[in-house]
Formats: sequence, C-alpha cells, structure tokens
Amino acid sequence: MSAIKLAIVGVGKIVHDQHLPAIAANADFELVASASRHNTVPGLPGYTSIEAMLAAVPGIDAVSLCMPPQYRYQAAQVALAAGKHVFLEKPPGATLSEVADLEALAAARGVTLFTSWHSRYAPAVQPAKAYLAAHAPTAMQVRWKEDVRQWHPNQEWIWQAGGLGVFDPGINALSIVTEILPSLIFLKRATLEFPDNRDAPIAAELHFQDAAGMPVHAQFDWRQTGPQSWDIVVQTADGELKLSNGGARLWVHGVEQPLEQEAEYPSLYRRFAELVRAGRADVDVAPLRHVADAFMLGQRKVVAAFHD
Amino acid sequence: MSAIKLAIVGVGKIVHDQHLPAIAANADFELVASASRHNTVPGLPGYTSIEAMLAAVPGIDAVSLCMPPQYRYQAAQVALAAGKHVFLEKPPGATLSEVADLEALAAARGVTLFTSWHSRYAPAVQPAKAYLAAHAPTAMQVRWKEDVRQWHPNQEWIWQAGGLGVFDPGINALSIVTEILPSLIFLKRATLEFPDNRDAPIAAELHFQDAAGMPVHAQFDWRQTGPQSWDIVVQTADGELKLSNGGARLWVHGVEQPLEQEAEYPSLYRRFAELVRAGRADVDVAPLRHVADAFMLGQRKVVAAFHD
Repeated sequence: MSAIKLAIVGVGKIVHDQHLPAIAANADFELVASASRHNTVPGLPGYTSIEAMLAAVPGIDAVSLCMPPQYRYQAAQVALAAGKHVFLEKPPGATLSEVADLEALAAARGVTLFTSWHSRYAPAVQPAKAYLAAHAPTAMQVRWKEDVRQWHPNQEWIWQAGGLGVFDPGINALSIVTEILPSLIFLKRATLEFPDNRDAPIAAELHFQDAAGMPVHAQFDWRQTGPQSWDIVVQTADGELKLSNGGARLWVHGVEQPLEQEAEYPSLYRRFAELVRAGRADVDVAPLRHVADAFMLGQRKVVAAFHD
Repeated sequence: MSAIKLAIVGVGKIVHDQHLPAIAANADFELVASASRHNTVPGLPGYTSIEAMLAAVPGIDAVSLCMPPQYRYQAAQVALAAGKHVFLEKPPGATLSEVADLEALAAARGVTLFTSWHSRYAPAVQPAKAYLAAHAPTAMQVRWKEDVRQWHPNQEWIWQAGGLGVFDPGINALSIVTEILPSLIFLKRATLEFPDNRDAPIAAELHFQDAAGMPVHAQFDWRQTGPQSWDIVVQTADGELKLSNGGARLWVHGVEQPLEQEAEYPSLYRRFAELVRAGRADVDVAPLRHVADAFMLGQRKVVAAFHD
C-alpha cells in the first residue's frame, strides 16, 4: 500500500510540537510539502499559499489545515475542489455554516473530510466511554480552569470577536463530554463573563441536560492561578468516575486506573489514514455547535478588565 | 385520500391569527385537538399537555408546535417518539443541538419533520429566486428596521438570554436571503448591540460573503420609529432587484412587479401536507445557524438602556 502524500498548511507551534512528530512516526504518510505565509519546515519544499503549493507539487493526496480557524474555510475549499483529502485542526471552522458547506463539498467530491478533536484521543477517553456505556451516568461536572497568562501569553487574536476566548480550551472538554456520554446533551442556560476590555469570554458556566434530565454542569475559567484543573467527574448508580489532566488520568470508584501512554496526535493521524483508505468522512460539529449554542443562549456578564 | 388528523400544541396569538385560518381552508387537514397550558381553541377538545392529548385522542397523525422555542424540543421529542409528523414554528428550537437531534429522531422513526420559515412563502420570494438564478447577484443589502415598542410591546421573554432579541424578526430576513441567493453565504464579521439593561441585542450588523466574495450586508434594528423597513436590495450585472415589506412587494430594475396575494401560512400547510403524503422531511437550519454564528463571531457593544 503506497503512502498517502501529505502536505501541511499553516506552519505554527502546534505543527512543530504535534503534527510533524506524529506524521514522521506513521508509515501511512509521506510528508511532501508545506504552505505557510511566513514559516517553512526544514528539509521540506515550502510555499506561501496552498494554491502555489498545489500548482507546484504533483501528486499531493491530502492536506492538514493548521492555520487559525478564520482562514481554514478558504483553504479547505481550494483543497476539496482539487480533490484532496482534508484534515482540519480543531475547531473545524470560524462558523458552523462554513463546516456544513465543507461537509457537502467533500461528499460531492467523494474525498475524506476529518474534523479532528485531539482531546478525544486522550488515554482515559475510551475507557471512560466503555464504563459509561455499562453504568448509566446520573450527573456530570466539568471543571476546565487554567491560567490564560501561562497558556496563551499575549495572544491578542484569542481575545478578539470570533477568537472564542475560554472556549478555546473549553471546546476540548466538550469534545470529550460528547464522546464519552451515552446520550446527547442540550444546553439549557449559560453565563458568559466578558472582561470589560475584551471581545471574548474569560469564563463560562454551562448547564446542559440530556433528554431524560441528566444534568451536566460545566465551568470554564481562564483566571485560575496555582493548580490547574481539566477534570470531568461523573456520578453513576455504581459509583464515581473521574478523568483529570484533560483525560490523561482516570479514576473509577476512587481507584486510579492504568492507561496507555498519551498519543493524541499519533492517534489522530492513524484515524485519518483509516478514513482515507476506506474512502469515508468523519465530520462531527457537536463540540463547536455547543459553543455556538452557548453564545446564542448565554447571558453576558461584564467583569473586570483583563491585562496580560 | 383521507385528511391528515392534526393537533395544535401551544395556542397563542400566532395560532389564532395564522394557523387556524390556514388549516380551516386546507382540506388536507382535519384539526382534531389542541394542547396548551392556559389556552384552548373554541369548539376543539383541549388538553393542558401534549402527553395528555396524545393519550386521550386516538389517531392523531401530525402536530404543529407553536409554543415558545425553549419548550419546543421536549414536545417534539414526545411527538416523534409517538410516531407523529411534526411541524415546527420558527425558529425550530432554542439551540442547534436540539434541532440536530430532532432531525435524527424523525429520520429514525420515518416520520415527517418540517422546520417552517413563513417568510420564505412571501409572494416576492420565488420570483426573486428565479431572477437571481438567471442574473448572478454582485452584492446584497438587507435592512430590517422596525419599532420593537410597536411589534413586541412589553414582551419580556424576547429580551431574555436565548430570546434572540432583534434576531427574532431578523431571522425572517435570513430565511429569505438563504432562499433566494443561488450561492451559500458565510458570516465574516458582525456587531451586536445590547441595551445596558437587557440580555438580548436590540440591533445587529452582519457582513457575509459567498465563496466567490459576493458581499451581503445586513442591518437589523429595533429602534426604528416612523417608516418601518423590511427590505432586501440586490445588485446584478443587469440591474437591481428590490424586495420590500418583508417580501410582499418586488421591483425589478425599478419597475414594480405584479405578485400573487400574500398566503404565507396557507403555503406552509400546503407544503407540510405534501411532505407528509410523500413521507419526506424538510429540515433546514441555515437561518438559525447564521444567527448562532452571529452570536459566536459578533463583537458585543453595550448601548443605551431600553425601556418599553
């Protein structure tokens, strides 16, 4: 089976930290080029636009789109129109309307579109999902609290309208929640806290329920100093389940469980190769849809100005 | 062909003004019952819940759900689970996640789900759509400016979080725009104006583009006194198209066109009967998705307090 000829579009920190090592370790892929306005990958032909790259490099089968979300739709359109398979970093677009259109374009062209959610491949996620399939949850609490000064220092774009603010990490929690729960959940009410001097929320509190009334309470906060928390706790009739460290650790009835090594991006590329080989798509907008629902339904509170 | 036995759930002003006359004039339907917490329809068996109604009245084929959006999902779930066809007033739900689930439930049960958008049946809409299919638009401006004190006096719910504010009429404009344009559009930036004392926007300015860059500029405003405007103007290489009065009047190159009589709700019920007879669904969330995109992407501005 010949390798899938892959190109990277949008070369930033996440590409160097995660994508390049995962691709290098996967024999299903041969990395052949990159396109990025300002950056290149050492040893790889680099172009300043996806159009220039596709014109110059024959035989590209697939592209990974890793630029900021507001530029992703236009590049995905170009790639799908050229018949390339497309891997989208999270979130899959700046708006839901864009993603709906990309799904239709990929189906019409018969190529793979993969909306990736890396947190779903954290080692605790599949064991937690299996547990909850066998032990119905009665309630869930999500606490995603981190220090934005530590994780996003001086990143202005994340505070602009459309930058999503605290939902940038929060959407990772929602991608896990929607993966492990056996039922769908629906937002009932929400509060979003906007710093006086910013256009994106610094904190959010979300109240979901499933169709049977099972409550899911989520708190996202970017003002956490000291210990950081990326925890999901689930009550069941048989006891409690707890995921912490964003799904890197798992407790069942208070007993920590042995887990596989963390391998989120290698798993994403293994999944992408399977989809391309099988000629299938995997488009799940549920996490981004919950975020849009939260902005639409949520009550806005103005809180103290935030300065980096 | 026997009549479709129909029940109305949520009996308010719109039901008396629009639904009941349209149903009475349509031989495809036989109205057999209603359910509403506080209201009844003279001469019709009335129940205080959809569950009580379905238990008491045998042979109901279909229900029209006309209660406020935040109660629609639960009722639709009950109806679809009971194998009933469902007509949803606009907007089809409080969140996009709910509507996505209803679409899946209806498909699984093999019954009709119809997300109705009454403004799409305004008399100018299909002629405008036909014109734009033959004459490619180069730009569009939408002006939906009305006096909220006149149209929604002292309606507190419309100002609450999730009440959508000026998007309540604005979604009618978006339902027309997405019907008549030959291409899809995507929100690029937006501004939402929130009164200092309210949780929903009183005005919004939206900048869309289609994939080729064709601009659509929409202004929604609830502070309009004097003449009201519900206008859509479209430029084409061959001249200008203008819809006014919410699609009740149409000008082509400055010449007003003769149109059919206004018959939005009769047309909606004709369409619903066709769908039920054909065993098909018609679920289009595009207008609500654009609203959610606007809340997610839009910049919030706080403006002067609003008092009824």
